[in-house]
Amino acid sequence: MNKKVIIDCDPGHDDAMAILLAASDVSDLSIEAITTVAGNVGVDKNTINALRVCELAGLDDTLVAKGADRPLVREKLEAAHVHGKSGLDGTSLPEQPVKQTVDAHAVDVLIDKIMASDGDISIAAIGPLTNIALAMRKEPRIISRIKEIAVMGGGTYGNRTPAAEFNIYADAEAAKAVFESGTPITMFGLDVTHQALATDERMKQLAAINTPAATAVTDMLHFYSGAYKGKFAGAALHDPCPIAYLIDPTMFQLENVRVDVETKGEFTYGMTVIDADSRTDQKPNAQFAQQLNTQQFWQLFTDALIH
Amino acid sequence: MNKKVIIDCDPGHDDAMAILLAASDVSDLSIEAITTVAGNVGVDKNTINALRVCELAGLDDTLVAKGADRPLVREKLEAAHVHGKSGLDGTSLPEQPVKQTVDAHAVDVLIDKIMASDGDISIAAIGPLTNIALAMRKEPRIISRIKEIAVMGGGTYGNRTPAAEFNIYADAEAAKAVFESGTPITMFGLDVTHQALATDERMKQLAAINTPAATAVTDMLHFYSGAYKGKFAGAALHDPCPIAYLIDPTMFQLENVRVDVETKGEFTYGMTVIDADSRTDQKPNAQFAQQLNTQQFWQLFTDALIH
Amino acid sequence: MNKKVIIDCDPGHDDAMAILLAASDVSDLSIEAITTVAGNVGVDKNTINALRVCELAGLDDTLVAKGADRPLVREKLEAAHVHGKSGLDGTSLPEQPVKQTVDAHAVDVLIDKIMASDGDISIAAIGPLTNIALAMRKEPRIISRIKEIAVMGGGTYGNRTPAAEFNIYADAEAAKAVFESGTPITMFGLDVTHQALATDERMKQLAAINTPAATAVTDMLHFYSGAYKGKFAGAALHDPCPIAYLIDPTMFQLENVRVDVETKGEFTYGMTVIDADSRTDQKPNAQFAQQLNTQQFWQLFTDALIH
Amino acid sequence: MNKKVIIDCDPGHDDAMAILLAASDVSDLSIEAITTVAGNVGVDKNTINALRVCELAGLDDTLVAKGADRPLVREKLEAAHVHGKSGLDGTSLPEQPVKQTVDAHAVDVLIDKIMASDGDISIAAIGPLTNIALAMRKEPRIISRIKEIAVMGGGTYGNRTPAAEFNIYADAEAAKAVFESGTPITMFGLDVTHQALATDERMKQLAAINTPAATAVTDMLHFYSGAYKGKFAGAALHDPCPIAYLIDPTMFQLENVRVDVETKGEFTYGMTVIDADSRTDQKPNAQFAQQLNTQQFWQLFTDALIH
Repeated sequence: MNKKVIIDCDPGHDDAMAILLAASDVSDLSIEAITTVAGNVGVDKNTINALRVCELAGLDDTLVAKGADRPLVREKLEAAHVHGKSGLDGTSLPEQPVKQTVDAHAVDVLIDKIMASDGDISIAAIGPLTNIALAMRKEPRIISRIKEIAVMGGGTYGNRTPAAEFNIYADAEAAKAVFESGTPITMFGLDVTHQALATDERMKQLAAINTPAATAVTDMLHFYSGAYKGKFAGAALHDPCPIAYLIDPTMFQLENVRVDVETKGEFTYGMTVIDADSRTDQKPNAQFAQQLNTQQFWQLFTDALIH
Repeated sequence: MNKKVIIDCDPGHDDAMAILLAASDVSDLSIEAITTVAGNVGVDKNTINALRVCELAGLDDTLVAKGADRPLVREKLEAAHVHGKSGLDGTSLPEQPVKQTVDAHAVDVLIDKIMASDGDISIAAIGPLTNIALAMRKEPRIISRIKEIAVMGGGTYGNRTPAAEFNIYADAEAAKAVFESGTPITMFGLDVTHQALATDERMKQLAAINTPAATAVTDMLHFYSGAYKGKFAGAALHDPCPIAYLIDPTMFQLENVRVDVETKGEFTYGMTVIDADSRTDQKPNAQFAQQLNTQQFWQLFTDALIH
Repeated sequence: MNKKVIIDCDPGHDDAMAILLAASDVSDLSIEAITTVAGNVGVDKNTINALRVCELAGLDDTLVAKGADRPLVREKLEAAHVHGKSGLDGTSLPEQPVKQTVDAHAVDVLIDKIMASDGDISIAAIGPLTNIALAMRKEPRIISRIKEIAVMGGGTYGNRTPAAEFNIYADAEAAKAVFESGTPITMFGLDVTHQALATDERMKQLAAINTPAATAVTDMLHFYSGAYKGKFAGAALHDPCPIAYLIDPTMFQLENVRVDVETKGEFTYGMTVIDADSRTDQKPNAQFAQQLNTQQFWQLFTDALIH
Repeated sequence: MNKKVIIDCDPGHDDAMAILLAASDVSDLSIEAITTVAGNVGVDKNTINALRVCELAGLDDTLVAKGADRPLVREKLEAAHVHGKSGLDGTSLPEQPVKQTVDAHAVDVLIDKIMASDGDISIAAIGPLTNIALAMRKEPRIISRIKEIAVMGGGTYGNRTPAAEFNIYADAEAAKAVFESGTPITMFGLDVTHQALATDERMKQLAAINTPAATAVTDMLHFYSGAYKGKFAGAALHDPCPIAYLIDPTMFQLENVRVDVETKGEFTYGMTVIDADSRTDQKPNAQFAQQLNTQQFWQLFTDALIH
């Protein structure tokens, strides 16, 4: 039986790869909806990008809904340059998709899908958590109906500031609301996503596959890896991690921990404070992904692009 | 021509009086909807109270919609005891109303009404600002379509903490989002609502009116004024102030000021920081009600209960 | 018997007037020392000003000691322009005093004087509280030996920011340490010092006195009142208030309150949060001066300048 | 020529080992003074412990001065139990030392030594930074006269809270003042001190040495390692790290970074935010010790106890 998932995203190159992975033949995920949120670029561009990726992935019937265009409380973050002006620069995808969004807000799609379900829908949250926080506040009953939220965000260190990762920093108040909600959360922070690196060798292997999806991913990685040059051994495939986990959780080593989101700090706004050694008396509220079986991950990712 | 208003509230004795004033013969307000929010007590009780007050006020056709049951980010506030267990103790209103809410969320009612309007709807926001912040985030286009928000909240001093008034303290993050939105705001803080005191003499005058509305208000004030005993010369009619303003703005003296909502402080969470002397270089974002013409106010309020 | 006092100050026009008042014939204060601190201008200028005022006041034998040149933790505040470039512009005092400071740090003078005393020395703290906090940390035994600290600072509103008064804002961490120390504190905030206004009429009366001290004060007020033009009915004599209190406490109406100093807020750093209505469960830690008998105050101040 | 050092400490088992290392034959350090501060236990106990360790180490002529008994601003930290009731439990040292402290405050000893020097004194700061912050505020000229401060504190993760290490958490305001001072700082945080682990094997080697110092250290490690059982491969020799660095800097790999100390956060108070990837535009203010050559370290430490 297929596992139901809603992908809440801000595509973005690694969001695109996450969608391609979720839509591939090696995936047993049933994508109930793709919802978009402001993040790397504004929500309008992100939504167009989501539609473009759907067309590439053959997700013709998948419902796409546009969501929040700004964070819950804090001011809008200025666009980062990791993903280029369109949010998905460097690809040969058609600029304007034919596919359309549904005429409903992402928040309502999230609520309606989850309320209509048997509690069997997971959310892959690979952008800022604004939509999910809004949905939880508009319809609190979803909190106990969501099967699990697999979050790409946070970590014991940051990439937007020394302490904070982009997705959490972009809307720390939403992240706080979601992490404190009581819904089961599995967190894929930089600690583990930086284990999913597209090294030069792996990029060559992908380029050799020669399917449209593999070619697009290769193009994306060439563009996207520029931001990582010199600092890392390759571009990190952040957003595919929660999708890979939902397909095959065995490739991740997880630990139950307390995660608190800092919203008051002068230098630490948007940090996920992870109590791995139980130094506080707070009960765990998340599974923290510590280790990735890199070989399993790349096998899955490569297989996804071959077919 | 009638002035259109949506009343967003958490009744509450003074909310009830505000609705009665808005619905009275002396009012030229057209109540487009009443939306409820968690505040003094939970949103379920507040919604029942709103319906009970509608029945008393003869608002048979007025749309009532239930809204958010908890604040945007912070934990739920424990109920205060000002309004008793039901949130509206001490009245002889039927406990269970016949009138029903509409089958739509307060946030969507706010959005739909405002988007369908010609930009001529004001909001009287007399509870925590959760619904309004949620509506602004779900549909940002309302920000420039709302005519004005008349807020009961804040002040240069507090009643929940030394620095913070209840409505703002109960959801300071929502208040911050609303005050920073750019929508025209007129703010009725404790500075001015404590000028609308139901003194013993005034309570006697109300009791003598002997209409159902006047009797109900007298009962409410007897219950409600207990919380003020000894500290003030009478119970403050907080929530009727923005309604009185929407009916007749001439009774208030207003000043354009910058208002910032503190969300980080150790002792000042939920404080409205009012830059009356232009000490910051921030542009004004609110009209701050400084002075009330008490006589005009009581004339209006008494007239409302006579008819 | 004379009452012993150490004046910790950052002269400043109103500091100068405070010293003149303390040194005058109508005062029964014995000035044990004058200690200086960075504030309106840097500590070097403040110290020169203290010496200049001592010469005017005839305090030839009074020990003057230089203290801290920057706040405890926060960055140095940029100089305000209320007092001009020298910190005491507009007077005809000699620029370079003959009188010298002692060769000991203000912090050690405070500690040595208090430890050598019978617990009968009060401190008039009319600048930022840096020296006093440093002294309390270096020698904690002074905390229970200081008779009382009469602080000019804070209030229910601010003058440097909408929420914070200059002296507290300039070193809120020091103020927090002092207010939480347990030493008896009487606080003269803006609420009461703005009752000690040098109106045009009062300035004319002072000018008519024609003693050197009165002439100097008149000059100072002419310069200093510029900053108040249009906002108030005259220049506020902030710093003379705690001195007037130490001479004659009957002219002030005091209330025991809890005062907390905000050091974390985004808009409220340096605010004194005054729990006048006992809304918190914290025990009072200060006497808050609410009302000034203006006539008594001006009588004292005028008498001080006549003789 | 010997390198001059002042050791500011709160002994403490690892402080004791740091002093023994500094005093040993393999050290070319000239200990100008040992100053004590409240930390693991109160300053009185810490001072007695410092004297006891001096007697063991043969530091008969070394000046010991007692310092601050509480943090700069925050409330006193409740004692941790790592070091036992005395702060140095588990040793056979005489409980009451014969050696005495000098009759001067640690802060003045720091100031006087540094002001009298040719700018050639380093400080090994292995307790909370209260004394050093107080000294910098009392005599700002030391800021440019201190050769270097080698700090044991902080790290990219914590041991007192998930985010904060004990020494910084115990007085984050002091740490902020010191890190922002401009004095050259080399920081030995948990990242590197957890590389200096007394494994079982190493403890056996130490026990075999059979000098009084080695026996005492073995006893200390047996007591002290209890707190590390199960979590780490052995007890961390935190405080000897900066001493080892001052003796032989070649065993550490250092990086110039910006370090900010968080004093406002809800979950991150006392965290050192380390900008290792230059994500902020702040100039470096510290050398951050990343890697320890463990073999070099243990060779030095063992040699120190043999002689």
